Amino acid sequence: MLSSNRRRLRRRATGPTLEVGMKALVFYGPGEKSWEDVPDPTIVRPTDAIVKIETTTICGTDLHILKGDVPAVTDGRVLGHEGVGIITEIGSAVTDLAVGDRVIISCISSCGKCSYCKKGVYSHCLADEGASGIGWIFGHLIDGTQAEYVRVPFAETSLYRVPDGVSSEDATLISDILPTGHEMGVRYGAVSPGDVVAVIGAGPVGLAAMATAGLYGPSRIVALDLDANRVEQAARFGATDGIVSSDPNWKDRVLALTDGLGVDVAIEAVGVPATWDMALDLVRPAGHVANVGVHGKPVEFPLDRMWIDNITVTTGLVNTDTTPMLIKLLAQDKIAAQPFISHRFELGDILDAYETFSRAAETRALKVILNA
Amino acid sequence: MLSSNRRRLRRRATGPTLEVGMKALVFYGPGEKSWEDVPDPTIVRPTDAIVKIETTTICGTDLHILKGDVPAVTDGRVLGHEGVGIITEIGSAVTDLAVGDRVIISCISSCGKCSYCKKGVYSHCLADEGASGIGWIFGHLIDGTQAEYVRVPFAETSLYRVPDGVSSEDATLISDILPTGHEMGVRYGAVSPGDVVAVIGAGPVGLAAMATAGLYGPSRIVALDLDANRVEQAARFGATDGIVSSDPNWKDRVLALTDGLGVDVAIEAVGVPATWDMALDLVRPAGHVANVGVHGKPVEFPLDRMWIDNITVTTGLVNTDTTPMLIKLLAQDKIAAQPFISHRFELGDILDAYETFSRAAETRALKVILNA
Amino acid sequence: MLSSNRRRLRRRATGPTLEVGMKALVFYGPGEKSWEDVPDPTIVRPTDAIVKIETTTICGTDLHILKGDVPAVTDGRVLGHEGVGIITEIGSAVTDLAVGDRVIISCISSCGKCSYCKKGVYSHCLADEGASGIGWIFGHLIDGTQAEYVRVPFAETSLYRVPDGVSSEDATLISDILPTGHEMGVRYGAVSPGDVVAVIGAGPVGLAAMATAGLYGPSRIVALDLDANRVEQAARFGATDGIVSSDPNWKDRVLALTDGLGVDVAIEAVGVPATWDMALDLVRPAGHVANVGVHGKPVEFPLDRMWIDNITVTTGLVNTDTTPMLIKLLAQDKIAAQPFISHRFELGDILDAYETFSRAAETRALKVILNA
Amino acid sequence: MLSSNRRRLRRRATGPTLEVGMKALVFYGPGEKSWEDVPDPTIVRPTDAIVKIETTTICGTDLHILKGDVPAVTDGRVLGHEGVGIITEIGSAVTDLAVGDRVIISCISSCGKCSYCKKGVYSHCLADEGASGIGWIFGHLIDGTQAEYVRVPFAETSLYRVPDGVSSEDATLISDILPTGHEMGVRYGAVSPGDVVAVIGAGPVGLAAMATAGLYGPSRIVALDLDANRVEQAARFGATDGIVSSDPNWKDRVLALTDGLGVDVAIEAVGVPATWDMALDLVRPAGHVANVGVHGKPVEFPLDRMWIDNITVTTGLVNTDTTPMLIKLLAQDKIAAQPFISHRFELGDILDAYETFSRAAETRALKVILNA
Repeated sequence: MLSSNRRRLRRRATGPTLEVGMKALVFYGPGEKSWEDVPDPTIVRPTDAIVKIETTTICGTDLHILKGDVPAVTDGRVLGHEGVGIITEIGSAVTDLAVGDRVIISCISSCGKCSYCKKGVYSHCLADEGASGIGWIFGHLIDGTQAEYVRVPFAETSLYRVPDGVSSEDATLISDILPTGHEMGVRYGAVSPGDVVAVIGAGPVGLAAMATAGLYGPSRIVALDLDANRVEQAARFGATDGIVSSDPNWKDRVLALTDGLGVDVAIEAVGVPATWDMALDLVRPAGHVANVGVHGKPVEFPLDRMWIDNITVTTGLVNTDTTPMLIKLLAQDKIAAQPFISHRFELGDILDAYETFSRAAETRALKVILNA
Repeated sequence: MLSSNRRRLRRRATGPTLEVGMKALVFYGPGEKSWEDVPDPTIVRPTDAIVKIETTTICGTDLHILKGDVPAVTDGRVLGHEGVGIITEIGSAVTDLAVGDRVIISCISSCGKCSYCKKGVYSHCLADEGASGIGWIFGHLIDGTQAEYVRVPFAETSLYRVPDGVSSEDATLISDILPTGHEMGVRYGAVSPGDVVAVIGAGPVGLAAMATAGLYGPSRIVALDLDANRVEQAARFGATDGIVSSDPNWKDRVLALTDGLGVDVAIEAVGVPATWDMALDLVRPAGHVANVGVHGKPVEFPLDRMWIDNITVTTGLVNTDTTPMLIKLLAQDKIAAQPFISHRFELGDILDAYETFSRAAETRALKVILNA
Repeated sequence: MLSSNRRRLRRRATGPTLEVGMKALVFYGPGEKSWEDVPDPTIVRPTDAIVKIETTTICGTDLHILKGDVPAVTDGRVLGHEGVGIITEIGSAVTDLAVGDRVIISCISSCGKCSYCKKGVYSHCLADEGASGIGWIFGHLIDGTQAEYVRVPFAETSLYRVPDGVSSEDATLISDILPTGHEMGVRYGAVSPGDVVAVIGAGPVGLAAMATAGLYGPSRIVALDLDANRVEQAARFGATDGIVSSDPNWKDRVLALTDGLGVDVAIEAVGVPATWDMALDLVRPAGHVANVGVHGKPVEFPLDRMWIDNITVTTGLVNTDTTPMLIKLLAQDKIAAQPFISHRFELGDILDAYETFSRAAETRALKVILNA
Repeated sequence: MLSSNRRRLRRRATGPTLEVGMKALVFYGPGEKSWEDVPDPTIVRPTDAIVKIETTTICGTDLHILKGDVPAVTDGRVLGHEGVGIITEIGSAVTDLAVGDRVIISCISSCGKCSYCKKGVYSHCLADEGASGIGWIFGHLIDGTQAEYVRVPFAETSLYRVPDGVSSEDATLISDILPTGHEMGVRYGAVSPGDVVAVIGAGPVGLAAMATAGLYGPSRIVALDLDANRVEQAARFGATDGIVSSDPNWKDRVLALTDGLGVDVAIEAVGVPATWDMALDLVRPAGHVANVGVHGKPVEFPLDRMWIDNITVTTGLVNTDTTPMLIKLLAQDKIAAQPFISHRFELGDILDAYETFSRAAETRALKVILNA
């Protein structure tokens, strides 16, 4: 309570009035958002923490929400599920974290005690905060991180200390994009030493898959995208080969990088039927197709042709069970974070940042960092 | 050579004429088959063996071939890919098997030396006998087992000695059906202790999945089928629960056997869109869907709903890499073979056997054993 | 607070005086223990719960403590790390459990948030309750379960609700012995379908390994013990074969149950050099040796002979990560608990129970249940 | 037959006499070896091939044999189990290899059809060539590769084609040292992303473990050796840190590179009790100790201290099941071979090469390549 009072007093002191409150990006239905004053978040449960945001960023999912594709997001919701900040207040049951800790806010909230969390499948945390068996609640079912402060439920199992020497900017990539590419693409795809891996889609998540595939010793990482620029820059993320997928010979060119039978792992990181089909076209018998893309339509699965192919297909929302490991590798410079950051804005300029991010093809935006 | 001569002489002695040859079931295009005289098979390569059939059986795939669904099967092909017999002749490179050995003929021919075979994925053996990266060649790309004799390529890696005390009849189930249910259903489905497993389809392969799922300690094995008789008899194969899938509440009834979130593993053992859909409806987040059914049409995969579900879907032709293990368990009475055998015929009555097997709904045929 | 007051009032009402307190078995140094009045446990942290014991039991480890083998146990410590009871009070952060819940008290306390707990290795929980990187703290580093009440730290991740239909007596076996045999013996030993498994030592933990090995489809489970009675009764726990290890041909007799090369898995469940040596003698190339026994001396590992054998040796304290699964199987009658229970006593007669349990060779004691 | 005749004729033409034969390094008991004329090897079985050696090398095991430590090696045996060469003759059953193919001779001969080979455990191949359940037979139980020609049994499953662009010299490292370090150290040690790995012993095999550990994404690879030069040069093989183990603080220095609890994986690559003890001292709870060293004495395993530590210890002779994968990575320059090669000799100067290799501390010899 004391620490909370102190924080509010400090903030009052810097503002023109005595009003308690903060700025946040609020969703008001499809196409409508506003950077405006909202009440400060407060500790609701003994396992909560309040975090003052230092850096946050925008995800493709935020654009989907703004299009109205995620009906569970209701009017008045603060958006955002990524960020790094400083703990300003903790609940009475929090002992492993302290006020002043610099922490990564995981995009997945994990209660740490339900059957899914105990198996590391935090994506499907059954805790009642989520109320729906889903660990992604920030900027979705509860207020998110595109704000000056955020309440973090299950703080001890959902926040991760940032090691000294790792910038908040780099650490922000650990909230969502790096674990998503790593877990849903590379690990679910079972990338193994010697494999040829195709990553379909060289947007941020596809690039995150490329950037982490190298942890498993593949012989080749092949980047595919319709955008030649993206294909080109994929080399900075570990791609050994790149193919613009508008090339009518794209498939033969990929197969030529294999023994002719197809790739060991095809990672779908776009989310449309055409790229799903590409993944199925590329995978070899007994290979893996890891779907990372967020799809808006059903796809066709040609089981009449592929029942015999001994393939494994996976889907999924990130678990973030590898978050501590990724932090360790980031601290050891084993994963390059900087190439992901294409633009930087002040937090107060978040509407501009959205504008830039939403026109990624033109602006070549990857991750747009907002600094508080 | 001597042994071969002896065999032919012996056979000549029992027949009315001196002609060398044998009886076999020959395919002559859709709907056309004949039990007729064909030449004896002979050793073609040093790694071959000739096996005199003791027991064989008919597979649903044979019916597909007769419908014309498998165009690779050409006129004049001897059908059949299951059976047990006695080795009558071996090639010069065969040292681990001997004339007189009683052996299971695996439905998958494995060269034992290609990259797929070395990984145990015999289903996609690259050897030139198959010429197509497929290990299923008997009764498909080369002459099969519904005959008095069969040539077995790669004998040492495709034949398995039958232990004393195991009948040829029981051993015949190891050619295809038991490994198929076990590997493609149970193992690809990753059945684990405590799991609730739904098997959709209580035909021979689905029952084989049930009969082997118990090797992995599930808490429940739920049989689903449109045919109430089949559901009922599933209990003999290890099913703990059975639900007739025409029941409009079939889904709720299955979910009631779980914690409400769905089954850990759904095994699709039919091969039509409706049963595929059922599998997707039943699987819980982070669960497994193992497709065993042979599909004639593409299916729809609702990735718009399921991209977030962290499920794993597998497909596949049996590898038979667990064949030696299954033989060991059969010899220890840890797998019940007899309930699979619904009818017995003399080999010469194979056309009757086909008639019975093709009307399984009426005849309640499961596996129809043919004794030579 | 209220619930706590109510509890105390109720207990006062049943006793002759107004003193607050309970009975517990207190350790006073090697050879010294006393069933005496001690203060009631109270909630110390918001994540605690108080459990009123319904059933508890005695472990071989308790005998070790009484011999003075575990110096970390200090005078005045209440012993016991197994039990089932009713929650009488919960801390302010506990939301998933409620007063009145009937729960299994896991022998391992797990904070649910340290790096070890997140990987399911609760045995090495780093929480400060343990202060030593060990999850076994009851009756060791904090007061235990051989008492009328016990304080349970990290209640939500260390207590497990007992399903209706499972008796408290049976559930008590889930505190320690069943997960220990299962996890340290069967799972660390990687028992797989078709395996021949030797379990050396048919005491409670060895029997628990046998009782759970069947969840993994072995072809044989061979029980070995010096005590012919124990070997004989092992059949009730799933052993397919039994060999009295004083037989000079014990090794040949085990090998005769294999292909001559040794067992796939040897589970050491005694804890002396002789039984360790037996495990190494029995294991086949590429097999597994799972050490479950608590050893008082170093052993010799003949790496000069075995460096070439491709064996895997594991050690360990139980993690209890499979506790929920074992509860599910117990509720489904897939694991037989009753054969483990050899004797029953009133909780107040715990000194008699220790007497019986400590003379197990004579009394044939396995698990001695104490009912409050 | 023709090809064999051609080879012999060609060789006759280059020698002073018409005698058929070749030069080879022959063992004549402890301390005795000779580079001398021996008869040409010939095809014995239809699955054999004859290979003309292009490059071979000397292994530490060869020195052990010369010390008399391997009694199974009898007088007159041609030594050597590594090498690359050209196939000059094949048996009648060999179809996947041809005369003229340039091949790596695996140190492990694999029949490809026994139960061990089918599981990829070629190290314990049961084929009768080995007569002892061991896949290492070259220069041990049959004549080896330190010769102008060698007979290779089970050619198709024991020889591996060298891709264009890979030198014979580099490929020679695939015969033994790279798969040994990789399989017995890195894979048996279960190196995983983020791990801290200690490799004890920076000789050729320890360096091979370091050179391949990077395929699994560790955060640190720590080299330990008594020889400061070796520690220093370990950085060329991927070590991120190096510690001279004569430093009295060696253990604290390693622990300082971890979170204080020890390394995730300790790879023992020396083979004496002191280095085994070091591995046990370094490993963290739930960590792995992979023994690669060839031990001449038993070691002590302090189970009284470590029964509780949940560690996994592995031993083993290389399987070479990852040989095809390593070849692929070598061809892609993902593994650096050249740093391993410290010296080169003509094959005829093999006695000098032995002299250099046996004084490795002085000569700084790693792998000594012999070119025919």
